[in-house]
Amino acid sequence: MPVQDIADAIGDCGPAERADAFRLVAEGLQPEVFAHLDDVRQESLVETLTPDEMRRVMNELSPDDRTALLERLPRDAVKRLLWLLKPGEVREAVRLLGYPEESAGRLMTPDCVKVRGDWSVARALAHIRQLGDERETVNLIYVTEGSGRLLDIVSLRQLVFANPAALVSSLADESLITIQPDADREEAVRLIQHYDLSALPVVDVDGRLLGIVTVDDVMDVAEEEATEDFHKMGSVGALHLSLKDARPFLLYRKRIGWLVMLVAVNGIGAIGIKYFEASIEAVVALVFFLPLVIASGGNAGAQAATLMVRALATGDVHARDWLGLFIKELSVALALGLTMGLFVWAAGSMIGGGGLGLAVALAMICVVLVSSLFGLLLPFVLERMNFDPATASAPLITSVADIAGIAIYFLIATVILGLPMPGA
Amino acid sequence: MPVQDIADAIGDCGPAERADAFRLVAEGLQPEVFAHLDDVRQESLVETLTPDEMRRVMNELSPDDRTALLERLPRDAVKRLLWLLKPGEVREAVRLLGYPEESAGRLMTPDCVKVRGDWSVARALAHIRQLGDERETVNLIYVTEGSGRLLDIVSLRQLVFANPAALVSSLADESLITIQPDADREEAVRLIQHYDLSALPVVDVDGRLLGIVTVDDVMDVAEEEATEDFHKMGSVGALHLSLKDARPFLLYRKRIGWLVMLVAVNGIGAIGIKYFEASIEAVVALVFFLPLVIASGGNAGAQAATLMVRALATGDVHARDWLGLFIKELSVALALGLTMGLFVWAAGSMIGGGGLGLAVALAMICVVLVSSLFGLLLPFVLERMNFDPATASAPLITSVADIAGIAIYFLIATVILGLPMPGA
Repeated sequence: MPVQDIADAIGDCGPAERADAFRLVAEGLQPEVFAHLDDVRQESLVETLTPDEMRRVMNELSPDDRTALLERLPRDAVKRLLWLLKPGEVREAVRLLGYPEESAGRLMTPDCVKVRGDWSVARALAHIRQLGDERETVNLIYVTEGSGRLLDIVSLRQLVFANPAALVSSLADESLITIQPDADREEAVRLIQHYDLSALPVVDVDGRLLGIVTVDDVMDVAEEEATEDFHKMGSVGALHLSLKDARPFLLYRKRIGWLVMLVAVNGIGAIGIKYFEASIEAVVALVFFLPLVIASGGNAGAQAATLMVRALATGDVHARDWLGLFIKELSVALALGLTMGLFVWAAGSMIGGGGLGLAVALAMICVVLVSSLFGLLLPFVLERMNFDPATASAPLITSVADIAGIAIYFLIATVILGLPMPGA
Repeated sequence: MPVQDIADAIGDCGPAERADAFRLVAEGLQPEVFAHLDDVRQESLVETLTPDEMRRVMNELSPDDRTALLERLPRDAVKRLLWLLKPGEVREAVRLLGYPEESAGRLMTPDCVKVRGDWSVARALAHIRQLGDERETVNLIYVTEGSGRLLDIVSLRQLVFANPAALVSSLADESLITIQPDADREEAVRLIQHYDLSALPVVDVDGRLLGIVTVDDVMDVAEEEATEDFHKMGSVGALHLSLKDARPFLLYRKRIGWLVMLVAVNGIGAIGIKYFEASIEAVVALVFFLPLVIASGGNAGAQAATLMVRALATGDVHARDWLGLFIKELSVALALGLTMGLFVWAAGSMIGGGGLGLAVALAMICVVLVSSLFGLLLPFVLERMNFDPATASAPLITSVADIAGIAIYFLIATVILGLPMPGA
């Protein structure tokens, strides 16, 4: 049974039986099973296992999984767990935790197979054999200088079928992609994805090999980041745990902030409507089309923002591309507005006469245009200001589009229907 | 220079120079560079390269990349390219294209290293050496029976350090994860991600090895699927190409369908408002708070839908979990509604008196509750009906919430303010 499935089975146990179920796992497999449990279940085991049991797990956990656990725990739990580690492991754990949050260093494991470039192939193979099975990725061998500087990567296959007397350095092909430990982990995702790597070496400023980031860790990060962007687009704060495990109060906290802020934004719209009170009293039919026009603007704006936020996240477009996309959006939004304007012109004319139909159609075109361009620009502005572009969420765009829509709609209607301007 | 960077450089060339730039690449690298070009650029090269140049590329392209190209091209271009292939390659290409769209079979490459379980380790190693460098992933060796049935996977490392006289089958550990070729490619993503595999073997119903799906292909698929869901959440049709390459008309087509449909949905809201015309004429202040209340409902509903759509996509929740999540959402949405109701109660009372304040607050609570529950349920209903849950887009939820909001708001206000019921 694969460790991942054992972990799933333990995950499905209730909190009371979880520790007992974990104790049933063969001791040698416990660290690996622990690594595959999700955050909530790891933390509950940290609370319930005895120090001796946790000592075994902590010392055998691979360094990247250990970092992922320690970085989430409160300070006193971290201290308690570090006490359980062997001296060498403590140093390593503390060093890895020293890298910035969400950096490549936090994802890295120092466990990788290193050989010297000036060794013979035979000596390198003997060295690899000696290391045993414990290294995470043994099919890639890291070739270093005496100083520890990374020269190249060779595959086990290359070594196995090379002349045993040849120098390892003679196999090098000098195409080396590396990352620094304090780089953003999304950069590690991008490099591994772009260059189809199974592991990405992490080097310090002098090019010395510190460890590797493996493709399986990076896949998890990519999914996490996509989920975070997804939630942000829906105006939900990052959860960092399963929806099933999230308590109602946590969900409330992650949602209420944005909702209240959006109520405030929409409050400005309410003031805007009040300003045009006289127009409404004169032509009540204006109100029928109000939500329709402003919602359509919001929808078009949300579309534009969605396209930009995702394209910025995947690296498909960059901040410098904004002008070209703006010009393209100008024509697209105009065409969208004209099409939708045609529909509401017919409806408006039927219900409220030709004047209202014209007003509604013109307002629709302007609102769709303004909202689309706003939806396109906001992600770029946020990116430029070093905010996450995904903060330009659909609800935010919709709410701002509502304000613009209210102003545009009543202004156009007041002029076309010849109503008295407020304050005039 | 890595092939990916050569491909990027060629991608940056204008359409006129692209073919010439491609011709500058060493012939041996051309197929790999071609594979790393994006869809639009591959298709432009198919149009501009000579048949002889395309023959070389097509015959050397790895089978999975070839499938990815052929499945996008129009029928006559496919025919033309198949003519360029060697007989064996044609058969393979046609076989791979025979699997359903978006299936694991379409992602698969038959190029993998197979050895027989009844061979000695020494014979297996000699066989691997003979195969040369052409296989995609040579660190994993697939152990089969005489019938072609897959028995197990061993690593090159295991073979290298095993007793040369031992049978290959003695190294097997019998933990085998496989997939069938007509399974959904998202299932392949899920398996590779869950079990941290670098390649997933594809087998037929009799367990015979057909090929493998590699982790780098799967990462691209995961990103594509996330982008598709992202776009759907924003009511944009799937683009399948770079935003920079998309022509305005394509963008218009991908957006107008949903927008017009949503205009129709919002049209129902317009009819709803007309129904309460008398209430508006009696208390114009009702209109001030209308967009605020319905937008807030839409925002809360979009949040709930966002959480569910993403959780269903990542496998965090399943269709069967709906009831528990519904009950949790009940309490969360009630708390959200109460908080937001408090804010608008204060504003409503100040502007329109205590009656209006109460009406607005009560309507807010009901609208947030109804919209949140609708936003939660719709993705599950869609999933159950075998539609993509992401069709429950933020704009769709917002627009439906608008209709419900209009009805709830005016009903509550009409009752609380003692206005005459329409039609009464």
